Order: sequence, then structure tokens, then C-alpha cells
Amino acid sequence: MTPATSLDSLLRVLPEGRVVTDPDVTDSYARDRTFLTPGRALGVVLARTRDDVVATMRWATEHRVPVVPRGAGTGLAGGATAVEGGLLLSLARMTDIRELSPADEIAVVEPGVINADLDRAARAHGLMYAPDPSSYEISTIGGNLATNAGGLRCVKYGVTRDSTLGLEVVLPDGRVLNTGRRTVKGVTGYDLTGLFVGSEGTLGVITAATVRLQRAPAAPPATVAAEFPTLRQAAEAVAAVIAAGCRPSLLELLDRATLKAIDDWRNIGLDPDTAAMLIAQSDTPDGQAVAERMAALFDECGASFVAASSTPQEADELIGVRRMAYEAKERLGACLVEDVCVPRSRLPEMISAIEAAAVRHDVLICTVAHAGDGNLHPVFVFDHGLPEPPPQVWAAADEVFRAALDLGGTLTGEHGVGLLKRRWLDLETGPVGREVQLGIKQVFDPLGIMNPGKAIQN
Amino acid sequence: MTPATSLDSLLRVLPEGRVVTDPDVTDSYARDRTFLTPGRALGVVLARTRDDVVATMRWATEHRVPVVPRGAGTGLAGGATAVEGGLLLSLARMTDIRELSPADEIAVVEPGVINADLDRAARAHGLMYAPDPSSYEISTIGGNLATNAGGLRCVKYGVTRDSTLGLEVVLPDGRVLNTGRRTVKGVTGYDLTGLFVGSEGTLGVITAATVRLQRAPAAPPATVAAEFPTLRQAAEAVAAVIAAGCRPSLLELLDRATLKAIDDWRNIGLDPDTAAMLIAQSDTPDGQAVAERMAALFDECGASFVAASSTPQEADELIGVRRMAYEAKERLGACLVEDVCVPRSRLPEMISAIEAAAVRHDVLICTVAHAGDGNLHPVFVFDHGLPEPPPQVWAAADEVFRAALDLGGTLTGEHGVGLLKRRWLDLETGPVGREVQLGIKQVFDPLGIMNPGKAIQN
Ligand SMILES: Cc1cc2nc3c(=O)[nH]c(=O)nc-3n(C[C@H](O)[C@H](O)[C@H](O)COP(=O)(O)OP(=O)(O)OC[C@H]3O[C@@H](n4cnc5c(N)ncnc54)[C@H](O)[C@@H]3O)c2cc1C
Ligand SMILES: Cc1cc2nc3c(=O)[nH]c(=O)nc-3n(C[C@H](O)[C@H](O)[C@H](O)COP(=O)(O)OP(=O)(O)OC[C@H]3O[C@@H](n4cnc5c(N)ncnc54)[C@H](O)[C@@H]3O)c2cc1C
Repeated sequence: MTPATSLDSLLRVLPEGRVVTDPDVTDSYARDRTFLTPGRALGVVLARTRDDVVATMRWATEHRVPVVPRGAGTGLAGGATAVEGGLLLSLARMTDIRELSPADEIAVVEPGVINADLDRAARAHGLMYAPDPSSYEISTIGGNLATNAGGLRCVKYGVTRDSTLGLEVVLPDGRVLNTGRRTVKGVTGYDLTGLFVGSEGTLGVITAATVRLQRAPAAPPATVAAEFPTLRQAAEAVAAVIAAGCRPSLLELLDRATLKAIDDWRNIGLDPDTAAMLIAQSDTPDGQAVAERMAALFDECGASFVAASSTPQEADELIGVRRMAYEAKERLGACLVEDVCVPRSRLPEMISAIEAAAVRHDVLICTVAHAGDGNLHPVFVFDHGLPEPPPQVWAAADEVFRAALDLGGTLTGEHGVGLLKRRWLDLETGPVGREVQLGIKQVFDPLGIMNPGKAIQN
Repeated sequence: MTPATSLDSLLRVLPEGRVVTDPDVTDSYARDRTFLTPGRALGVVLARTRDDVVATMRWATEHRVPVVPRGAGTGLAGGATAVEGGLLLSLARMTDIRELSPADEIAVVEPGVINADLDRAARAHGLMYAPDPSSYEISTIGGNLATNAGGLRCVKYGVTRDSTLGLEVVLPDGRVLNTGRRTVKGVTGYDLTGLFVGSEGTLGVITAATVRLQRAPAAPPATVAAEFPTLRQAAEAVAAVIAAGCRPSLLELLDRATLKAIDDWRNIGLDPDTAAMLIAQSDTPDGQAVAERMAALFDECGASFVAASSTPQEADELIGVRRMAYEAKERLGACLVEDVCVPRSRLPEMISAIEAAAVRHDVLICTVAHAGDGNLHPVFVFDHGLPEPPPQVWAAADEVFRAALDLGGTLTGEHGVGLLKRRWLDLETGPVGREVQLGIKQVFDPLGIMNPGKAIQN
């Protein structure tokens, strides 16, 4: 195939302006938020309709051209990284909220809709779209679906999968598949919806989703934060909150290294003896009382300092510390953001393993955790000047991944495998799982043109 | 293959007493709760361990013998009905709760564990196993998983899928596949767990499940019941309860025909002008207040009679009416129990369609609904003496199914397709969906020996 000729034939089947080949533009669609170096792409398709996607995929099948679907490119695993000689297919301009039904508490949305825009549309009806990745103002529903994104609220409201009822998908050969349903329950046929959620663009292109909305809490959440002299005490406090049935709507942990990065940047008056901070919220009608109860539990577990908000402003300040975490780390260097998840009871062991790996390999690792879910983001910081993580970072990461698996955990709680974690995939999936996964891939994508080399292929 | 010889070779690879060929015994494992006539089975394997299942499936693959996995046989779709010349594989004796971790709020259970037994084991730790089909005292976790069973509580707590984290599955060729994880989140590989939940025994045999437990409510639920002069008012009351954010833990509707069947049997003093009854529960700490709020909403929507419980005994009496529904109908004749589900806002239209079909075809249809989920069970009553539903019942059922699909609904909310609904399958799945489903079946079961002819094959 000579790329130029082929794109000519693509240009003929798509409306004017949909295909861009200017390398400056193409490059800006070739990366996600990782350090990974993309391959050279043929061009970018800026799809506006499902038919654009159908035409693109038919063309790609005919010409055996790899296609990388892409939302906002905020991914942290390399899932949207351009592959050599492939086409980039941006869904970012398919931004229609096709339907929003307050009575059925569902919405039908296109993949380019920004997470927070859907949430805002729902709020106008007293509803919310529950899954809220920290990137909610910049990431798309399509990307959220393809990575099964989690978020801060998911300790109470579940991950993206839990809010997804049905999908419209364009298969690699251009056929349109409708999965799932508009109802909250159903068991006709295999669960294809679940199969596409988290598939990282390797099975087909999501062009619409029927998602579940939920009642928005009546009042803003009540917030409590606490500092602990040891990690174990913080972990015990997490367990105590869950065991007491508090059902927090947010339960986050920041480790010493993260707090130090934030304090160095913004001077939050950190006590040098603080090993970890917990931030918790409750969004129930009696949220204030629940927050007080959580504060008491933090106290009982040995917190050196406990602060409860009594106004939304105070709550924003407490939660603001959590929001600074990512930026504070980025100021320290380039970041490999990781995403292991362990059974909640193994949190202390997991954090100890991370600390041990940091010491052993002399690497700075700052960890924040969606503690209520056992989902940790150890961020490996390395020299800004380096094109990719140096060997000692990979060695430390390798240790962290293996520790997570040994503790009954997983390589990725919410970011996906992408390109970054393929090396470790088999450790978790095992040979039978691997064979089955590849078999499923073959059903949907026999030519192997959908986002090749990502997620399930190592 | 001569069956006798073949079973000899199976007897050699299984421990003593695992295989039964006595036709009296075999027959008792050949049916579920439908009227469907089973094929003649070669025998029953009463598995006690995963290894029994592995040996059985290896043997079945070698000899190309169909296998029908089976839990308690309480299914309502014919999923566990024996197929001609096949083997029945009962998992009912694999009843070990391998692990129950209060700290992680998970349990690892074998498929033969009775739903209520798992729930009771969890209650000992202040937890519960949320999915509660009405058959919870008699159905198995394996059967619940294979049908993605719902229940009364699932309006608040979700269906079986929502409580399933990982599975151990024996594939048709005897290989063991572990899916999912012990963590509450994770996105490594495609969601194979979701694929097996609801697959009705057509992809492999579930030999263990890691399930999520939840905090049990501290107090018994508060209950409210109301009678309405029209169906529309009852449906409006359902919408009002949801819109008010009451989050009931149960929200059931009984139609006129069902109430009459119960009244004729037990004389509950039914007002002949009552068109529908709603029963609702709240299990939150302020449940009593929520129940009162729901009672007020029922009143506003035109209820002719509203009763709220103030003691657990009174609650039991109110909910008792719902529990009588199934038996009351069985006294009237043989039953075809159906299971359509529509978006909640379409409930009144769906009920009207059912009533119209009943009149048009002169068939008695009694309907109960998990109203909060839009899931209706129209029960088609026919003459006890008949071996199967007469043509007018099928004609009425056909109308009901098509109406559900026209309203954006599904053929089955929680019972599965089994043998009963295969005829209508394509109407919902569509040709692309069908092709993909068969492709997936092929990946797991290339020889077609796993519960052939069920669920996805028509
Ligand atoms: C500051 C920051 C905070 C973050 N916080 C979180 C967090 O809390 N939780 C979390 O889960 N993630 C988080 N992320 C990661 C990222 O935002 C999520 O993975 C998000 O879901 C990606 O959405 P996107 O639109 O940017 O997708 P992209 O990065 O464009 O793509 C992600 C993957 O999805 C595929 N894809 C995209 N659209 C489609 C489609 N329509 N059809 C098929 N495949 C498609 C791509 O091929 C790729 O494999 C964060 C990222 C940043 C930068
Ligand atoms: C009175 C009554 C009330 C009911 N109420 C409800 C309700 O509220 N909600 C609801 O959802 N259902 C309800 N049901 C239907 C039935 O109880 C459920 O479908 C239940 O999940 C079946 O469980 P079982 O153990 O009896 O499975 P079975 O009937 O033995 O099997 C059901 C299906 O699962 C497959 N299967 C069973 N075990 C395995 C395994 N280990 N691996 C692979 N496949 C397997 C079988 O092949 C079959 O296809 C009710 C039934 C009755 C009789």
C-alpha cells in the first residue's frame, strides 16, 4: 500500500474536512499523557457521525490499515498512542447528548462528550453521572468506557461499567453492533457491553452509549481529613470506616512522599511526622453526622490531627490538597503513573512494598490511593530530561507489580494495560486466560487492525 | 458411541459414587421448573470437587457428549433441561464456602451453595449477600450466576453480576480458567467474568465464585403497602418514589389478576375496585421516615388505601401478600412464567399491553413486577391437564414479548432465555449481535457440547 493513494480513497468516502494529514496536527493526536513515543500515523480522521466511523473502518479493513481510536488523549497507559503506519480516529467531535431521560434515569451519549459535561447536563434534572475520574473535566465518555475509568466517587457509586447499560459499536469491518439495553436489568445473550467496557479500543469503536444516571445528593458532601503518624494507623482507619458502615462517597489516602511534594510546592504546613493523610466524604442527608463519626474513628485509630468541614468552602480546602497531588508530582520530574489495586485489607502491605521498592532502587515514589477501593497510584518520578523511565524505575515498578499480584491484586485498577503494562500481563492473566482473550479478539477483529499491540497483546 | 461403554470409561476416571444412571434418579435431575419435556440423559454426575468437573468435561470432550450443568433446577426458562443423549452435571453437592473475609467484604464460594446459606454466613459478620431471587432458599449461587439472577432487593443493590468479582470455570475441554479478581476494581484483559454471568451454562462450568458482600442494614426494613384504583396511578407512584430519591430497597407491584388469585385463595379482604397494589421497603437507618414519605407519595398519587408497618410483624404481613403470589397462581393452573423488562417509564404501557393480550387471546395473565426495575413477570395460566401451553397462550406471549421490545425493553430481565425464549431471540439480538454471540460461543466451546441449544442458539 502507498499511503498517499490510500488516503485519497478514504478522502473520497468521507465528507470534506474529516481527514487531516498535516504532520503538525497529526502529531498532536499521536500521544496520550504518557512519555511513550508514538509511531508515525498516516493521518487523523476527525469523525463527526457514526457514518464517518463506518466509512473509516470499512476503508481500513479493505486496506488492512491499523486504526487507533482516541478520545481526549488523557490516558495514562499508552492506549491511544499512534501505531506506525496506522490511522488515528478521533471521536472527540462526536459530542451529542442524544437523549437524557429523567424518568428512566438514563442518557444516550456520543463518545466525545466530556465526562463533566454529561454530569452537568444530568444535574439540571437533579441527577448525576456517577463515575468521576480526576480527569472528568478533560476526558471523554468514550475513553472512560474504553478504560473502564474509576474515580473518587466510585468507592460508593462504582466504576464506569456499573453505569453502562448498552453500547453502539462500529466493528473493524464497519458493521454496527448494538449491545445491551435501555433497561436496568437483562440477560438476553452474552454480556457484550461488559466486553467492550475496558477493551481499550481493541475490539471496535464505541460510537454511542446508554448510561445510567443516579439521583444527585441533595446537599454538598461533608468532608473530614486526618493526618496519621504511621501508615498502618491510616490503613486501620480505612478499615474502621468501612466496618462501621459509614459508606463514604470518597475515601482517599496520600502518603508521606506525596504530602511532602505538595507541602514543598504550596506550604500546607505539614507536620514532618505525618506518614499519611486520609480524606473522606459523606454525601448522605445525614452526611455531617457521618463525617463526625468518621472523624471519631480516625481519632480512635491514632490520628495526630483531624479536621472536619462545616462549610462547603472548608470542604473545598480539605479536598483541595488531594487535587494538588498530580501537579505537585509533575513539578518534581517526569512521571510514570501506576495503578495497582489490592484487596482493601492488604493496603498496608502494598504501601510497605512500594516504600521498600523506592528505597531498594533509590527511586522517588509518591503514592495516592483510592483507599476505600484498595486502588493505589504509585507515581514513579524521574529526571525531566529523560525520554523514558530509567532502568531503576522499571526495576522498582516490576517489584511493585509483582507485590500487587502476590497480594491478590491486579496490575491496573482503572487506567488500563495500554502499552505500558503489557510486559506483566501474562503474570495476571495466565495461559488459559490469554488464549481465551486472543480468541475473543479474533472474533471481533480477525485482521488485527483495531489498536494493535495494545491491552491484551504482549 | 454406545452410551454404556462410554459411561464405563467415565466411571473409571471419577471417584466411586459420582455417576448415577438409575433412570428414576436421572429423571429427577432432568427438568427445571418449566413444563418442558427433557431429552433422555445418559446419566448424572454428582460432582463434589473441581477435579470431578475437570474429569467429566475431558471425558465429554473426548466422546463428544453434550453436558448440561445444573444447580438446584429452580430455573424458569428451561436452561437446565436434559438434552437427548447428554450428561447431566449437578453442582449441587459442591457446597463449600471456601473463604469469607469480613475485612475485604468478599466470599469465595462453590456453585452448589444455596443463596440463603451464603447470606446467613455473611450475616454472622454484619454483612449480606445482596442478590436475593425469590427462590433464595432453594436456588444455588451457580444457577444464580449462570442466569444473572435478580431479586427483590436488586432495585437498590443490583443483580448478581454486580456482586461478582471473579470466577473459576472449567472449560468444555477440561482446562481451568480463572476470571476477574479479588479486588473491587480492575481492568486487566477483557471482562470474562461478565461473559460467564448470564451465559446459562453454554460456555463452561462455574466451579467457584468470588463474590462481593455488603454491609447488612442495621435494622429490619420499614414497609409500606398501597392499593390503587387504576394501574396508571400505581405506575405514577413508582415514578414519584424514584424521583423523590427515596431509594427503596424493595418496590413491587401486583396487578388485579394476581391480587384476585391471592384473595380467592387466602381472603385478604381485597377491595374489588383495586387495580394494583404496591409494596415498598426502605432499609436505611431513617427507614421509617422514608416509608412514611413513600406512603405520602402513594396517597398523593391517588391510592385508595395505604398501610405502613410499625413493627417487623406488620411488615411481614404486608410483604407476605407478595410472597403468596407465585403459589396463588400455581393453584389456578399450569403456569408459563415470563420475565420481560422495560424502561421504568414504560411500565403502564407494558401492563396495558399485557392486559390487552389477555383479553384478545382469552388467556388469564397474572402479573407481578419488580416495579422499581421495570421488570415484569406476567404469568400465563393454562389448564393443569395440558402438557404444554396451548396455542392461544403462545400467541398472547408472542404479543407480550413484541410489546416489550417495542417499548425499548428486553425478553428477559433475570430468568434467562433457556429453551423457552429462543424463538424470539433474534428480534432482540439482531443479525450482527447473533453472529458475534455465536463467534464467542465457538471460542469457548468449539465442539458445541456445553448445554447445546440453550440461550443463544435458536
Ligand atoms: C490528571 C489526570 C487525572 C486522571 N485521573 C483518573 C482517574 O481518577 N481515574 C481514571 O480511571 N483515570 C484517570 N486518568 C486517566 C484518563 O483520564 C482516563 O483513562 C480516561 O478514561 C481517558 O479518556 P480519554 O478520552 O482521554 O481517552 P484516550 O486517552 O483518548 O483513550 C484511552 C483509551 O480508550 C480508547 N478509546 C478512546 N475512545 C474510544 C472509543 N470511542 N471507542 C473505542 N476506544 C476508544 C483508546 O484507544 C485508548 O486505548 C487521569 C488522567 C489525567 C491526565
Ligand atoms: C418460586 C421461584 C421464584 C423465583 N424467583 C426468582 C427471582 O426473584 N429472580 C430470579 O432471577 N429468578 C427467580 N427464579 C428462577 C430461578 O430460581 C433462578 O433462575 C435461579 O438462579 C436458578 O438457580 P438454580 O440453582 O436452580 O439453577 P438451575 O435451574 O439448575 O440452572 C439454571 C441455569 O444455570 C445453568 N447452571 C447452573 N449451575 C451452573 C454452573 N455451576 N455452571 C454453569 N452453568 C450452571 C444451567 O445450565 C441452567 O442454564 C425463581 C424460581 C422459582 C421456582
